[in-house]
Amino acid sequence: MSRKPFDIVRLHHAEVTVTDLERARHFYCEGLGLIETESDDNHIYLRALEDANHHCLVLTKGEQASLNHISYRVSSDQDLDELDQLFSRLGVKKRWVAPGEEKGQGRALRIQDPGGIPVEFFYEMDKAERMLQKFHLHHQVKIKRIDHANCLITNIDELYDWYSNHLGFRTSEYTVKGEGTDESVWAAWMHRKPSVHDLALISEKGPRYHHTGFWMDDAKTILDACDHLASLGYYRNIERTPGRHGTSNAFFVYLRDPDGNRVELYTGDYFTNDPDWEPVKWHLDDPQRATFWGAAPPESWKKEAVPVQDILTGDLITPQPLKTREKA
Amino acid sequence: MSRKPFDIVRLHHAEVTVTDLERARHFYCEGLGLIETESDDNHIYLRALEDANHHCLVLTKGEQASLNHISYRVSSDQDLDELDQLFSRLGVKKRWVAPGEEKGQGRALRIQDPGGIPVEFFYEMDKAERMLQKFHLHHQVKIKRIDHANCLITNIDELYDWYSNHLGFRTSEYTVKGEGTDESVWAAWMHRKPSVHDLALISEKGPRYHHTGFWMDDAKTILDACDHLASLGYYRNIERTPGRHGTSNAFFVYLRDPDGNRVELYTGDYFTNDPDWEPVKWHLDDPQRATFWGAAPPESWKKEAVPVQDILTGDLITPQPLKTREKA
Amino acid sequence: MSRKPFDIVRLHHAEVTVTDLERARHFYCEGLGLIETESDDNHIYLRALEDANHHCLVLTKGEQASLNHISYRVSSDQDLDELDQLFSRLGVKKRWVAPGEEKGQGRALRIQDPGGIPVEFFYEMDKAERMLQKFHLHHQVKIKRIDHANCLITNIDELYDWYSNHLGFRTSEYTVKGEGTDESVWAAWMHRKPSVHDLALISEKGPRYHHTGFWMDDAKTILDACDHLASLGYYRNIERTPGRHGTSNAFFVYLRDPDGNRVELYTGDYFTNDPDWEPVKWHLDDPQRATFWGAAPPESWKKEAVPVQDILTGDLITPQPLKTREKA
Amino acid sequence: MSRKPFDIVRLHHAEVTVTDLERARHFYCEGLGLIETESDDNHIYLRALEDANHHCLVLTKGEQASLNHISYRVSSDQDLDELDQLFSRLGVKKRWVAPGEEKGQGRALRIQDPGGIPVEFFYEMDKAERMLQKFHLHHQVKIKRIDHANCLITNIDELYDWYSNHLGFRTSEYTVKGEGTDESVWAAWMHRKPSVHDLALISEKGPRYHHTGFWMDDAKTILDACDHLASLGYYRNIERTPGRHGTSNAFFVYLRDPDGNRVELYTGDYFTNDPDWEPVKWHLDDPQRATFWGAAPPESWKKEAVPVQDILTGDLITPQPLKTREKA
Repeated sequence: MSRKPFDIVRLHHAEVTVTDLERARHFYCEGLGLIETESDDNHIYLRALEDANHHCLVLTKGEQASLNHISYRVSSDQDLDELDQLFSRLGVKKRWVAPGEEKGQGRALRIQDPGGIPVEFFYEMDKAERMLQKFHLHHQVKIKRIDHANCLITNIDELYDWYSNHLGFRTSEYTVKGEGTDESVWAAWMHRKPSVHDLALISEKGPRYHHTGFWMDDAKTILDACDHLASLGYYRNIERTPGRHGTSNAFFVYLRDPDGNRVELYTGDYFTNDPDWEPVKWHLDDPQRATFWGAAPPESWKKEAVPVQDILTGDLITPQPLKTREKA
Repeated sequence: MSRKPFDIVRLHHAEVTVTDLERARHFYCEGLGLIETESDDNHIYLRALEDANHHCLVLTKGEQASLNHISYRVSSDQDLDELDQLFSRLGVKKRWVAPGEEKGQGRALRIQDPGGIPVEFFYEMDKAERMLQKFHLHHQVKIKRIDHANCLITNIDELYDWYSNHLGFRTSEYTVKGEGTDESVWAAWMHRKPSVHDLALISEKGPRYHHTGFWMDDAKTILDACDHLASLGYYRNIERTPGRHGTSNAFFVYLRDPDGNRVELYTGDYFTNDPDWEPVKWHLDDPQRATFWGAAPPESWKKEAVPVQDILTGDLITPQPLKTREKA
Repeated sequence: MSRKPFDIVRLHHAEVTVTDLERARHFYCEGLGLIETESDDNHIYLRALEDANHHCLVLTKGEQASLNHISYRVSSDQDLDELDQLFSRLGVKKRWVAPGEEKGQGRALRIQDPGGIPVEFFYEMDKAERMLQKFHLHHQVKIKRIDHANCLITNIDELYDWYSNHLGFRTSEYTVKGEGTDESVWAAWMHRKPSVHDLALISEKGPRYHHTGFWMDDAKTILDACDHLASLGYYRNIERTPGRHGTSNAFFVYLRDPDGNRVELYTGDYFTNDPDWEPVKWHLDDPQRATFWGAAPPESWKKEAVPVQDILTGDLITPQPLKTREKA
Repeated sequence: MSRKPFDIVRLHHAEVTVTDLERARHFYCEGLGLIETESDDNHIYLRALEDANHHCLVLTKGEQASLNHISYRVSSDQDLDELDQLFSRLGVKKRWVAPGEEKGQGRALRIQDPGGIPVEFFYEMDKAERMLQKFHLHHQVKIKRIDHANCLITNIDELYDWYSNHLGFRTSEYTVKGEGTDESVWAAWMHRKPSVHDLALISEKGPRYHHTGFWMDDAKTILDACDHLASLGYYRNIERTPGRHGTSNAFFVYLRDPDGNRVELYTGDYFTNDPDWEPVKWHLDDPQRATFWGAAPPESWKKEAVPVQDILTGDLITPQPLKTREKA
């Protein structure tokens, strides 16, 4: 892989829309133990236990659940200019976000990626108190950091190449459908940090946003989170109960916030940056792919996702059905 | 509670029927890590890591999955005579089992309880090597001991009284259906050892046997068991994925052996023998009753169970539908 | 074992002396997560997450750390009269405690056992809210219940017989010193509930009180407790870091409260009530006896313990050195 | 941080000397569950559960415990030439290792770093079967991958600058001694992969090799490893029992192989590659630095380490005492 003139470090935060900030605050702070760094009439800025910066999740008041944007951190301010030039060359819809337009954050570059997902790049963010070893101040649910974003798109071949070739993403695992000459990629787990993923791309009606994944230390901690949420009254919000993914080998639980935005609590991936890494290949029909223990996900998990916003207008983009290549 | 002239210590073992002993051996020994103490052409005698006796589970060759009997240990040999007299007075179908008829076991008394469940009482059993601290010889799945038996019966009111009044069972938790004057008991968790249960009685078409519960040390150990079983090829045998029960507060996973006999791996209950214990009451409609985290069990778990044997003939007893008292 | 005319259910609570109630409250409530049921100028009554009664630990203001008494619950009020008659026959120092003298508790019988330990028996106690499934109200340190009391005494042979023959205690494990004809019992783990112990008797300068053991669900929960305590500033109070005992097979950590009273957080024992249970024998010189992983306990853990009170006067009893039988 | 013309990916393996290969095989394979990929009369090549390459640890027959070399993987073959030129410019002692001289590995460049540590860089290694999801073939001790190397050196200021400026290492945490103008760096945790460390540098008599750290999934898995090792007879090899480090926040246990080479089982660090990361600073006198729970390491852990080899002659380098800068 050739070296890029920029370095995307990792997925750093996401901004999602909620209809009722107080209700969302209760879910994310009392329920999930995220720490409120700052808020205003329309936003709550949250960080996790390991974060030394202002936010890893922004809740923004709006008319329905949706993705405002996901955001990658780059390793220098100049990287943003390099990316700007790249996106100009590639003809990608983009805009600069002024310092402070997103609280606590320096200038940022937002684009609509070729799959329609609103994506941000930034370098600078205010520091915040890191709570990692203040165990006595930890919440029952111990989210350490954001891990990945899972997006539903209709053009996986194009997007996979785009992230691989232009942005330097690597692939840890992927899923195919069909056999032999009909085989085609159905999903890809792509990363910049050397974990299973920063970004999962799944072929479904899109663009839509499936979930934000957060890192927890171990499986037991994820079970404890379920007990806490259920006891607090959020048992209906536990959409897919804990299990192990075949793909990624991670241990998971999936939650829905009161508006329907989906959150994954996630642990257990592995190192992926050895230069001769061969992506793990799964077939869509493998009964252990989605759940290594064999149980099917609930229908809502397979069918439901939130729309994404246009980076210029803020309008929700109407998802398009997946064109089945078999018919092409 | 008046003191009985006998003392039932705990549920000690179960005997279930399998159609293929080799296939069953692979599931229970390679899959579940139970230790084979002895076997012959028609039986495999298994024990768990903490057991100091010959068996906690007997697999017996037969024509279909079924329960041969569950067995309680009593605290003295004379207790068996006391029980024999009691069952004569009560008019219960019974027979004596000669020493060694069940390998490794002294004389035993078998009855068909008023719900139709085949139940044994015994005192003496051969010793076997206890593996508890031989950690380096432990299997990946670390079952410590048998915990309880879960039976489906059609006459809960009668049976609940019978076990309470005649055999000295106590109740830790119970479930009711209906409201007000229509309220009636639907299920009861009963015990002799001071845990949540040795015996669960559930109102369903019966008599049938739902599952044998085995004790594991903690939730993580149960998750490890799922990984091992799934990797070994038994992912289709993980019927109900790990979760927490509302009733009993236990953490569980449910498995089916290759013939359909059901096994629960179970951890997390509590002390129940304080003299002023007030049984925990659940309503059948409580969404957190079956799974505290809100997820419904799969249909097979709710509908399927194996038949039980007649203690005299060994014939399978035809289950009867549950008479709905609402219509009475 | 012959049946007694009384039934001691389990070790139910302990009362220890602290010099500063506020400081002790911070340690036991903020540090250990015990729940304050009630308090007055001289006492704090604490319960654990699984308790449905008023207290499992009483902190009483006094001049130095000491044991006021340990207390066993019996299964009926009449049992107390039976015990009173027994102790009269045995010539044991005793007194009746009036209902309410210990808050929340009915009448109780206190004795000085033949080893000098102040021991109480009671039947009735006020109910309190059970917090077991209110996970969202749990503290970071999740103590479920009291488990056992560990006492240092100088007359183990006498005391072992006394608890076995007169009070119906059984033995799960024991330690011997010496070889062949010089072999003698050095310690015994004795129980009424079918766990490893309600009472450990250790041959040391005595009578002294070594520690109160509390039950936690699993090893991970005990590690979490250490993180919480260390972060809260109590790292000097973690006297013996987590490990596995050879004897009892339990996973442990030992803490000292600000006055020096010792607390064990404990998990992992096994069922001990099978009628043919053969106590596990350890030799005092076995390097895996105290810590299965081989590490020696710190000197303070081996040497230090608190004095016990006279049940009539409340005076501290002067501990006597252990007479070494080797010289006899 | 300026971009280097080469990219060091991570610490990839270590080669240590043992005096008895069979004895070492038992410790590392039966004891620690590492998988033997290949062996010959003088070497055993081991890999961990997540490894897709030939080895992460080489055991080589020799006259006493020592470090042959630690080895970093680079992201392209050309990186090796870039490093060769850099080391020529820097006047570092070096030699090329021919493909296959270390079994399964392509050409490699070995140097003696300015602290005296033998260090290798390589790009190519044979693939081997990755066992990550073959849970049923896992050993009781589940080491996932190598994590870091801990080296004792006498010139931390020089070495810290060298790794930072010439090789592009970043620092996650560091320890200082002294106060005010006497303050100086005593130790540094440095990384290329975005974890706490690939390399720890500690100021002690040196050069010596303190330990190789291996990654485990969670604390419970490390406790299970202790049970397994102790049961297998290796309880004397558990040098420092499980605990949490202040520095790095990791959960650990330290083992000695039968020759004295030290191994750490390690879990729990955090993401360290954000561009504004501020290294965590500890003071040498902080009682929570070495063990967050306050317990001091055993003397052997503080004093003992193995010598390192000269990369040209294979001779052991005589460690030099630490010059105390206070006297300078």
